[in-house]
Amino acid sequence: MKARVTVTLKNGVLDPQGKAIEGALGALGFDGINGVRQGKVFDVELSDRDAAKAREELTAMCEKLLANTVIENYAIEIL
Amino acid sequence: MKARVTVTLKNGVLDPQGKAIEGALGALGFDGINGVRQGKVFDVELSDRDAAKAREELTAMCEKLLANTVIENYAIEIL
Repeated sequence: MKARVTVTLKNGVLDPQGKAIEGALGALGFDGINGVRQGKVFDVELSDRDAAKAREELTAMCEKLLANTVIENYAIEIL
Repeated sequence: MKARVTVTLKNGVLDPQGKAIEGALGALGFDGINGVRQGKVFDVELSDRDAAKAREELTAMCEKLLANTVIENYAIEIL
């Protein structure tokens, strides 16, 4: 079973990397960009066959390792 | 208009970061993980109101800056 975990910064948390990308896109001539925020995505392949159990396990992985829940949100998608 | 660009490594490209995460999850006691691959996600806010034009512009951004198309795939999603 495949799953995708998307980790993004919470609103209000500064994102200098996103700001740099926004600046670089502007320098390349792309107009009308009001903001860029960068996040991470993890494609996890699990041997679980039960979606509910997989989601539970992925939540634990996010809480323990994949996301810093003080400043980041995570979303789990079973593919 | 908001859009999400997801950049992932192409199949066959080594992902040492993903391997390290896989190892760390194993060390934390998570079993049954057959693979982890890490990618990037960019949440872009555009002033364009036309989805087709926005998609075209985002494709150009990916080709020029956001993705290294030799080793990475990108997917554009208009939210």
